[in-house]
Amino acid sequence: MPNTIALLTDFGTRDIYVGAMKGVIQRTAPQTTVIDISHHIEAQNVRQAAFALLNAYRYFVEGTVFLIVVDPGVGSTRKPIAVQAGAYIFVAPDNGVLSYALADLPEMRAYELTNPSLWLPETSATFHGRDVFAPVAAYLSAGMALENVGDALESIFTLPPPQLSVSGKRVRGEIMHIDRFGNIISSIGQLRWLAPDKLTLDPRFGDSRVPVPVRATEARIKIDTTEIEGLSRAYADAPRGTLLALAGSNGYLEIAVNQGNAAATLDVVVGDHIDFTVGGA
Amino acid sequence: MPNTIALLTDFGTRDIYVGAMKGVIQRTAPQTTVIDISHHIEAQNVRQAAFALLNAYRYFVEGTVFLIVVDPGVGSTRKPIAVQAGAYIFVAPDNGVLSYALADLPEMRAYELTNPSLWLPETSATFHGRDVFAPVAAYLSAGMALENVGDALESIFTLPPPQLSVSGKRVRGEIMHIDRFGNIISSIGQLRWLAPDKLTLDPRFGDSRVPVPVRATEARIKIDTTEIEGLSRAYADAPRGTLLALAGSNGYLEIAVNQGNAAATLDVVVGDHIDFTVGGA
Amino acid sequence: MPNTIALLTDFGTRDIYVGAMKGVIQRTAPQTTVIDISHHIEAQNVRQAAFALLNAYRYFVEGTVFLIVVDPGVGSTRKPIAVQAGAYIFVAPDNGVLSYALADLPEMRAYELTNPSLWLPETSATFHGRDVFAPVAAYLSAGMALENVGDALESIFTLPPPQLSVSGKRVRGEIMHIDRFGNIISSIGQLRWLAPDKLTLDPRFGDSRVPVPVRATEARIKIDTTEIEGLSRAYADAPRGTLLALAGSNGYLEIAVNQGNAAATLDVVVGDHIDFTVGGA
Repeated sequence: MPNTIALLTDFGTRDIYVGAMKGVIQRTAPQTTVIDISHHIEAQNVRQAAFALLNAYRYFVEGTVFLIVVDPGVGSTRKPIAVQAGAYIFVAPDNGVLSYALADLPEMRAYELTNPSLWLPETSATFHGRDVFAPVAAYLSAGMALENVGDALESIFTLPPPQLSVSGKRVRGEIMHIDRFGNIISSIGQLRWLAPDKLTLDPRFGDSRVPVPVRATEARIKIDTTEIEGLSRAYADAPRGTLLALAGSNGYLEIAVNQGNAAATLDVVVGDHIDFTVGGA
Repeated sequence: MPNTIALLTDFGTRDIYVGAMKGVIQRTAPQTTVIDISHHIEAQNVRQAAFALLNAYRYFVEGTVFLIVVDPGVGSTRKPIAVQAGAYIFVAPDNGVLSYALADLPEMRAYELTNPSLWLPETSATFHGRDVFAPVAAYLSAGMALENVGDALESIFTLPPPQLSVSGKRVRGEIMHIDRFGNIISSIGQLRWLAPDKLTLDPRFGDSRVPVPVRATEARIKIDTTEIEGLSRAYADAPRGTLLALAGSNGYLEIAVNQGNAAATLDVVVGDHIDFTVGGA
Repeated sequence: MPNTIALLTDFGTRDIYVGAMKGVIQRTAPQTTVIDISHHIEAQNVRQAAFALLNAYRYFVEGTVFLIVVDPGVGSTRKPIAVQAGAYIFVAPDNGVLSYALADLPEMRAYELTNPSLWLPETSATFHGRDVFAPVAAYLSAGMALENVGDALESIFTLPPPQLSVSGKRVRGEIMHIDRFGNIISSIGQLRWLAPDKLTLDPRFGDSRVPVPVRATEARIKIDTTEIEGLSRAYADAPRGTLLALAGSNGYLEIAVNQGNAAATLDVVVGDHIDFTVGGA
């Protein structure tokens, strides 16, 4: 099993912050491979990072240590934590950034990082990513037992789930993310194809976890005043420049324009409502 | 020989797309080193990616697997392919993105990716980079024989070459790329210095492949209404802030401003004409 | 000791320049791990790169080779150099980019890169990062003796130090950097906490190197017409949206807005003055 740390931060790449963290990881655990998930989470946007982590984690090898530093409360009383869940370990501030991934994973064990012998000797109050989180993640990636990081925790901080309400055949969700292509990714999922015209919707963020059947041709999607009829399979199923709705690569309902920018076309932002009428099945 | 995958995509680095691909590569081929060429190809700009690949590939170790995902036709009938040419392997959609590099390399063998046992178990219709291309590239980087990827292809899709016409002493080309510094890189090449005042122009994109002699001091470059006289060797050969023309680091005619931004100075864009009068030799 | 190269350039990540350098490093020294410090130094801003290097280098493992390519004079008479200082090696153009880090480190040995047998066979006049610096750094990371790179140098080019004048209890410095969060990082440092209300200021860039005592509650910071009273420990010590001053993670006086953007709030730029009245101790 390779030693892997996957990094997710809001540090951007203009400054030296990510480089300094990687320097610390490399000198602490030289055999560890570091993989960047992204460093361009919007500054201090914990929820965006939580959704990114949810969509990324399952593609990494078992044993991966996820090091997430989106940390508006650095230096305050918010705890630094390490959590094991499923085959993964997560090192992060206790601000809810792990909420969505952990909801997806079996039983967890959480610890507060209270063992300063693992940290850099001089610990700043403004950059725990480098001084606390990076060395702890490095030791964990090299095989150190989780309980060495500090004191066990009964519970950790949890974000409220994204908006997702199912009433009859209408599901109301919200825009969670707009990607680099302008694709609009919603909180409505998981959508899975069963047959050429048949899907199920498994509302993992909602109260109900009972899968809802969806007939692709009868589905109706509404954002603001725009309506889209039917679910496509691929961007290329609609003519170039045309709006379409599909099950995105993370399983959530996604609105796109084939070879265009859906968010610019519709002038929407993260947090806007999306209504999805699922049709019969 | 190290196991290497070189990545070139239009995914940007804000989203988790590149990270998910790297997660898949790492768990499929833990010994493989992944090197980013760029993830900032303009969205769906196949031609820009083709030119980037042409300029980058030769600096990589023999055996490198190039994984190129600029894929406006994902989920349509465009084929996913793997191609061996020279000492390299290329994994990409069959949309012409390999055209310029392959034109530069000896005989190729091309295969369609039709062996789903190599892909992720659940294959989305919108992210073949993660579900199809990444695992196949990973297996190839670890030494799997090329023919295992699927069915042999007789031919693959090819982009038309960039504009490059030679008539007498005038060569007409086009702007292929504007780099981060505002340097203007043209389709006119390869330029090679033979002596202090002497170059040859080997129009590798043109019909003629006969090298053309160029006298540096007699060369004339014209973009829109601006003319530049003579070819310099280095940016610093012109006073700071001054326009100059030279043989760029990829061998193509390049227009630059010493310590300035040529594209902003000239207000030009990719696709604009450049005329080059080569002078005698 | 792992083989490590840390990269710092102004190449950005849109172009293939960084990828080509990494290709050259990988085929020259396959066992070397490459870590990016940043590629988003402002184009040709040698001073910004010097400050970035100062703030990053100490987090890297002993033996790390720092490869810095911010090189406005490429192809001119500026020398390419390799320098050993402390436990580190630096490969860079001789334009002052190493000044701040070297001032921080014990005795150095400097060499000019005059041994072309280490370079790429065809050396361009516009991309020494790829053709000269990368292969030399790769050989050094793999253990080649420093003196093999070329001829010993008596001295190298040095930047003037940042503005930092101490007169009585007033220290005048300048803004050195504005980070991705809008935090304003000054030339005034190093600040170190000794007790809950007590710091020392060790003006490492100034003429005096005698530490100055600082009482946190009596410190006064002035930028333009804005005054801040007292030094905080962490961003979260001030209410959300409030200006504060603290000892940044690199030890320099830093102005921030808790969960906000200080540079936008104050409308300041790199080079502006900051006055710091240190109070008694």
